[in-house]
Amino acid sequence: MYRWASDLFPICRSITGTGVRTTLDYLRNLLPEMTVHAVPSGTPAFDWSTPDEWNIEDAWLEHEDGERICSFTDSNLHVMSYSVPVDRWLTLEELQPHLHSFDRLPEAIPYVTSYYAHNWGFCLPHAKRAALKPGRYHAVIRSRLEPGELNYGELILPGRESREVLLSTYICHPSMANNELSGPVVTTALARWLAGRDRRYTYRIVFAPETIGSIIYLSRNLERMKERTIAGYVVTCVGDDRTYSYLPSRLGGTLADRVAQHVLAHHAGSFDRYTFLQRGSDERQYCFPGINLPVCLVMRSKFATYPEYHTSADDLSVISPAGLQGGFDALRKCIEVIEANRTWRVTTLCEPQLGRRGLYPNVAPKGGVRPLNMMHLIHYADGNHDLLEIAERTGQFALDLAEFVPRLAEAGLLAEVPA
Amino acid sequence: MYRWASDLFPICRSITGTGVRTTLDYLRNLLPEMTVHAVPSGTPAFDWSTPDEWNIEDAWLEHEDGERICSFTDSNLHVMSYSVPVDRWLTLEELQPHLHSFDRLPEAIPYVTSYYAHNWGFCLPHAKRAALKPGRYHAVIRSRLEPGELNYGELILPGRESREVLLSTYICHPSMANNELSGPVVTTALARWLAGRDRRYTYRIVFAPETIGSIIYLSRNLERMKERTIAGYVVTCVGDDRTYSYLPSRLGGTLADRVAQHVLAHHAGSFDRYTFLQRGSDERQYCFPGINLPVCLVMRSKFATYPEYHTSADDLSVISPAGLQGGFDALRKCIEVIEANRTWRVTTLCEPQLGRRGLYPNVAPKGGVRPLNMMHLIHYADGNHDLLEIAERTGQFALDLAEFVPRLAEAGLLAEVPA
Amino acid sequence: MYRWASDLFPICRSITGTGVRTTLDYLRNLLPEMTVHAVPSGTPAFDWSTPDEWNIEDAWLEHEDGERICSFTDSNLHVMSYSVPVDRWLTLEELQPHLHSFDRLPEAIPYVTSYYAHNWGFCLPHAKRAALKPGRYHAVIRSRLEPGELNYGELILPGRESREVLLSTYICHPSMANNELSGPVVTTALARWLAGRDRRYTYRIVFAPETIGSIIYLSRNLERMKERTIAGYVVTCVGDDRTYSYLPSRLGGTLADRVAQHVLAHHAGSFDRYTFLQRGSDERQYCFPGINLPVCLVMRSKFATYPEYHTSADDLSVISPAGLQGGFDALRKCIEVIEANRTWRVTTLCEPQLGRRGLYPNVAPKGGVRPLNMMHLIHYADGNHDLLEIAERTGQFALDLAEFVPRLAEAGLLAEVPA
Repeated sequence: MYRWASDLFPICRSITGTGVRTTLDYLRNLLPEMTVHAVPSGTPAFDWSTPDEWNIEDAWLEHEDGERICSFTDSNLHVMSYSVPVDRWLTLEELQPHLHSFDRLPEAIPYVTSYYAHNWGFCLPHAKRAALKPGRYHAVIRSRLEPGELNYGELILPGRESREVLLSTYICHPSMANNELSGPVVTTALARWLAGRDRRYTYRIVFAPETIGSIIYLSRNLERMKERTIAGYVVTCVGDDRTYSYLPSRLGGTLADRVAQHVLAHHAGSFDRYTFLQRGSDERQYCFPGINLPVCLVMRSKFATYPEYHTSADDLSVISPAGLQGGFDALRKCIEVIEANRTWRVTTLCEPQLGRRGLYPNVAPKGGVRPLNMMHLIHYADGNHDLLEIAERTGQFALDLAEFVPRLAEAGLLAEVPA
Repeated sequence: MYRWASDLFPICRSITGTGVRTTLDYLRNLLPEMTVHAVPSGTPAFDWSTPDEWNIEDAWLEHEDGERICSFTDSNLHVMSYSVPVDRWLTLEELQPHLHSFDRLPEAIPYVTSYYAHNWGFCLPHAKRAALKPGRYHAVIRSRLEPGELNYGELILPGRESREVLLSTYICHPSMANNELSGPVVTTALARWLAGRDRRYTYRIVFAPETIGSIIYLSRNLERMKERTIAGYVVTCVGDDRTYSYLPSRLGGTLADRVAQHVLAHHAGSFDRYTFLQRGSDERQYCFPGINLPVCLVMRSKFATYPEYHTSADDLSVISPAGLQGGFDALRKCIEVIEANRTWRVTTLCEPQLGRRGLYPNVAPKGGVRPLNMMHLIHYADGNHDLLEIAERTGQFALDLAEFVPRLAEAGLLAEVPA
Repeated sequence: MYRWASDLFPICRSITGTGVRTTLDYLRNLLPEMTVHAVPSGTPAFDWSTPDEWNIEDAWLEHEDGERICSFTDSNLHVMSYSVPVDRWLTLEELQPHLHSFDRLPEAIPYVTSYYAHNWGFCLPHAKRAALKPGRYHAVIRSRLEPGELNYGELILPGRESREVLLSTYICHPSMANNELSGPVVTTALARWLAGRDRRYTYRIVFAPETIGSIIYLSRNLERMKERTIAGYVVTCVGDDRTYSYLPSRLGGTLADRVAQHVLAHHAGSFDRYTFLQRGSDERQYCFPGINLPVCLVMRSKFATYPEYHTSADDLSVISPAGLQGGFDALRKCIEVIEANRTWRVTTLCEPQLGRRGLYPNVAPKGGVRPLNMMHLIHYADGNHDLLEIAERTGQFALDLAEFVPRLAEAGLLAEVPA
């Protein structure tokens, strides 16, 4: 995963353009079944319209004395995303409204966009901006903003059931690592793991530009997704190794939320809990009134909370193989719990005699933790509690409890209750 | 309000009599639309009967050596309310059962009543009572207790809807300020403010003697009130400047309760929460089983909790213009929230594109607190949450959130959902 | 109760055999209406089969040098319950798998059983076991394990209603006092108290061996018990004087649970709360899915939590007359609350005028705690809250509140609402 992120890091992505397609081509090499869709500019999507395609060749800002202040070739973050073409001389005063910097991290280049209002701008470290000399500056941006297409990747992994789990990640940010490349590379790893596994549920995996991409995707797939989706996760900020985070769906309490909290409690021990008021990614669309998909977020350090966020400092040093693996494992366990989660009914009245079935120590004082947990499972397998509820009630990790099921089912002691 | 309270302070009120009528006449000058009702003594009202009317001209208690112990002309609190006429010489020992004093505030005259058991008595500071000399005392009370009438004031301010909000206050206590004059003067100020305002709801405003007055009022208006009342407040103890208090309806959770807690949290920050076990005013009748109106209390210092309560020390120094204004403002905001509280549904699927409607900053990093709060409103305007619920969920004050509604509704983004 | 426990202490009980019958005979002398049932070995009961009957005459373990290590006549705990007959010479190494000791209490003989796997064993203090000399040992157990019967006692005390309350205790442990003899002796005392009392409900009182006994009992009485049982308690560990404990039913919230917590809060102040995960007695069967009887536990020191548990140290010094009386009183109060618990509706609209009925002081400041509590009862007697809910809402003990009912009902102010 870290190598994939390193390969994808230099590409200049935006919500449309060559960078997105290059990124999707790279991922399609890892996920041959993925389909890349193209949506023509101007195509309507709910309250929105697909924007023109933006591409950039080069850009720089120079002082009249020849000093180059910043250059697209040094960092694609130096140019405000969706900047219209420009080739102008301006005084420093005239230039200021086109400059962007963050004083919260004065040495880093901030990430700034203006997708829907035609504008242009340069982004630079706050310290450097403060030191700009008086005089005239030459601003050059060689970009094109014109009808084209918007692209997204889609991978459907069919399962034994038509009910679906959604994984959605975005591919529209330029050179930043935790937000965003950790998202597509962990999603890719999950997709490859799922592809080689028996699947009860069908998996819908989406790589799209944030906001407009998920809006377009929903406008084309809403009916089917509303019918079928039982849980979903927006995969973002899953690459650093500082913490784990959970951000709920709009109203909370969905299967995705219950699983996320259960897994993080057992996988991470403690973790940071946010509310939907702190939303910021495609959960804004997936959870919107009328859409209402059961989608939440399991992250490492949440967007907008860590110091390097949305600056050039969110580079490959922020993420790590261990950080990515932790993000992957948390989401993998969520999927495993969703797959394992069923409702059973014990078939005996009163406790079954486990001893004669070789399922229980025969000499009392008996016990030990495992037999007790198996008995907990039996006692709450009343047809009204699913595995996840039993796990929460008994303080066990759902996947540990699930290990008892095959032996008990073989012994005829548990019967599955249809959902 | 403070001047009105000062004007009304000297009047000797009880649950019937001239003092009540004088008080209602004063208020009718401020509220010309108010109707004053007269209920003949003996008129039944649920489990009760309208009591005889009580009036008092003068009263005094003198030692045989000529020392005047207390006199009605010094303070109307010196005579137990509803004292029958008396003109007797008694020894100190014979007198003691007719004397009342509070050791909790030894310098103050306590407020004592005996409405339903014929009796007479004098009330005096505990210190003074303890110092009474032996000897014979002359007790004179020139009162009349005879068939007459019980009076209450009623003001109906019609709104666009027939659904009603109730404000009920009482006018039966002699010279005491926080409990009770703060109640009628703040209610009068609210009625005058409401009279000059566009009203969605109809307002039913009642000035009646406590307990028997609300029982009589309910016995005459119950059907209509049960059909129409959506919220109500008993207005009492709203004049001092020490704290804010909330006392819930019998079962809690009504619109009146939800609004009261929301407003106090934003108006006062912290406030004292009581339970219905600490009830004491007309909420006892409005919330009684079978009546069950959605009525609770928003107060400053609650009755029976502050040191001057029910004594001559609850004088005009306990209340203040600022204290009354705080009580008025809290209740005014409650009414404004009730008026503003509606349920909306956002009309788009996925987030609307606010930028092209001039409702949102176009250059990211966007944001700021106000746009975020507007987005919160949009995200929870799902047709299932009313304004108050959205305000509670998002930590905003309901009236601040309500400010976004007109612009969003004009832009066609919000549609009201019928209740 | 303490004397009964002392009489029963020496008897060697197990889940079947002479010791059980002797115990039941002793209790039948105290409860002449009790029926003793006999279930032939091999009789099926749900997933189980009634085991063979076990009896023992004598047993000992001797070193080849003639030293007697332990002997059944010293303590019946020395022999593992349900040991098959043996008469063998073994080396110390061969003997070890047949020895049982607890290092948690090194001076005490542990209590060990092997009901369902044919085996034999001796139990001895850990310190003594550690000091065993090398050499050969003679193990002699003169027991019989052969078809016979399993016995249990049953007492039905009919009430005015066919709805039932269950009390279940067990009689299968050899010489141990808190667990188990406190259970049958307190249950016997409760039965004698109930026999002499007017009973609204019918009482089903069961003395059976733990686990297999309650399973057999349920297999014979389930339909009737599911139809009729409104509450029940497993009576065990009610004899020491160290604490009070509550262990809920499987899902909690039944009438038995509500009453248990209410009574313990008022009887004991603070008490230890366990969860159903810490179950261990016949609540395992009574609460099993498909059985689901409303049964929980009110105990003194819970099984498996006090140091002497399941060893010879749980002798008559662990329990005391005061400890047993406390256990009895807590359960007696539970029964009294269940009997008193009804739902009433106040018959007036608005507060009744208590003064003219002599139910309330007439001179205000009125009050005092008792009239206030009576008013609380009236205010929540709305036909929707039972006595227990009103007691919990108002912080009163249910039996104290119940004392107001006769006077209020006589005055026509309260009417019972059918359940």
